[in-house]
Amino acid sequence: MFDIDKIISVIAARKAKTVGLQFPEGLKRRGPDLAREIEARAGVTVIISGDPCYGACDVDEGLRDMVDVLFHFGHSRLLEDDRVVFMEYYHDVDVEAAVRQALPLLGTRVGVTTTVQHIRMLPKIEAILKAAGKEPVVRPGDSRITYPGQLLGCNFSAAPQDVDTILFVGTGNFHPMGVQMATRVPVIAADPFTGEARKVDVERIMRQRYAVMAKAMDARKWGVIIGMKPGQQRLELAKRIKATAGDAVLVTIREISPERLIAFKVDAYVSTVCPRVAIDDVSRFNVPVLTPVEFDIIKGLRKWEDLAFDEIRGD
Amino acid sequence: MFDIDKIISVIAARKAKTVGLQFPEGLKRRGPDLAREIEARAGVTVIISGDPCYGACDVDEGLRDMVDVLFHFGHSRLLEDDRVVFMEYYHDVDVEAAVRQALPLLGTRVGVTTTVQHIRMLPKIEAILKAAGKEPVVRPGDSRITYPGQLLGCNFSAAPQDVDTILFVGTGNFHPMGVQMATRVPVIAADPFTGEARKVDVERIMRQRYAVMAKAMDARKWGVIIGMKPGQQRLELAKRIKATAGDAVLVTIREISPERLIAFKVDAYVSTVCPRVAIDDVSRFNVPVLTPVEFDIIKGLRKWEDLAFDEIRGD
Repeated sequence: MFDIDKIISVIAARKAKTVGLQFPEGLKRRGPDLAREIEARAGVTVIISGDPCYGACDVDEGLRDMVDVLFHFGHSRLLEDDRVVFMEYYHDVDVEAAVRQALPLLGTRVGVTTTVQHIRMLPKIEAILKAAGKEPVVRPGDSRITYPGQLLGCNFSAAPQDVDTILFVGTGNFHPMGVQMATRVPVIAADPFTGEARKVDVERIMRQRYAVMAKAMDARKWGVIIGMKPGQQRLELAKRIKATAGDAVLVTIREISPERLIAFKVDAYVSTVCPRVAIDDVSRFNVPVLTPVEFDIIKGLRKWEDLAFDEIRGD
Repeated sequence: MFDIDKIISVIAARKAKTVGLQFPEGLKRRGPDLAREIEARAGVTVIISGDPCYGACDVDEGLRDMVDVLFHFGHSRLLEDDRVVFMEYYHDVDVEAAVRQALPLLGTRVGVTTTVQHIRMLPKIEAILKAAGKEPVVRPGDSRITYPGQLLGCNFSAAPQDVDTILFVGTGNFHPMGVQMATRVPVIAADPFTGEARKVDVERIMRQRYAVMAKAMDARKWGVIIGMKPGQQRLELAKRIKATAGDAVLVTIREISPERLIAFKVDAYVSTVCPRVAIDDVSRFNVPVLTPVEFDIIKGLRKWEDLAFDEIRGD
């Protein structure tokens, strides 16, 4: 599962003495065994990051500064940083059953998208589509995207709009909902783990977002949240929002929680960090937390019908 | 309450354009008003740290790197860092009633200790003691301590041992319990806010710590926690503990929580971060979390009767 030979060879090539490991939640429990094996084989000191890790944007800079090289597992490279080696993690689960389930729901021209975990299945997905008489379309994304067809939760730049349907192969709701709202193209989500496919419905989340926006319309004091994670920093955007909001304060938060939000007596927040924060955690917050897109709408800078997911785009 | 003239003059002297503010929890709610006032008077952009802040050890390095100068409120200087200006915060509450309540509980030679919030009351405390026929003793601490007589939660170097009693003026249990365990001298805690004084009893906490140590004696897999906050980093200590523990993994954690501790399947942790973490949060953790002192005891490197609070000492 982990490419330990590559890890050992990077350590040797860099003559590293102290090595950091950073895992997303699902892989953390395997950290100690991997650390032990690296220490035994390479004779180095290994330090594991114990903080949450939500993506390639979320590099543990503190640990990186403490070690000679930081191995960041599970995500593809997002930012250039010589001190960080991104170790992608692929699921071996087969995609065939799920894609076959999706076939009747797809139009002829099909945009193909997935996450890095399944990216090596892309040729197989295309082959299944072609064999079924479909025309698969795979596009490269912007500079934040490593592979053609790859989506991040905050970046749908690899999703084609000139297609009949977009097929998303992967788990969860966030990526397919985001790509649907970003492209306005019908999205079919095919989950390789369950073998099921379904049409993505964004209506419930749209209603929820409109409700949050309506609640924020009376806000007089605003907080604008600036991300502290390297791939989530949008300081200029935050300053622009502050200037638009009038009575507003800029706040940096590393991990957003209800307690940290109520500490400052403001009526509503705009979050410039990972768009998932405002959306996934909406029910936990006691004040409205808007994305920059939503803030622009209630300030009249964008039309209500142009509600979209907040994206963090590259070049 | 806040010395805004000093803030403005520092901003002017440094020609700062972007300014950071960091507050302990009790002062955070006043951050937005202070930010607004600084922005209006100095024409700068102000950014507030929204993360928890537990002491002078807990400088928000991410925010510091984002601004021209970071004002850190409520704590006295601990580390040298030109980019951080420590703005101490003093309570105006009078100490007289509490110290008078303490008098019958004190011996003749009295070590006087307090926290930075009440440090300006030290001459008054000494005067009350002298007028009552006592002999106050005020000692300078090590390099982490700004004022003679000042305690931190992790550093009791300013507490004299060649006295009959130590008087602690301040709130809470942590400082007086720590100084009692560090010095083995009877400690009387006088709380200026309630006007009450009491003898400090460490028996309950001692029993609790012995119980945690006993639970950890069977641990085979260890985690050693390394602090990410600038004033809490004890990497060499962590490495020494790892070597002693045998099967052990080094883990960095920024804010310790039960979830972060269970992520790695280890039997027990040793925490080299702020000693309060292991002690104050003991009931929240589902695995034993020891201080380095306690780890040494169960490994036979220190005697059980020499149990003391973990201190982070300076030069």
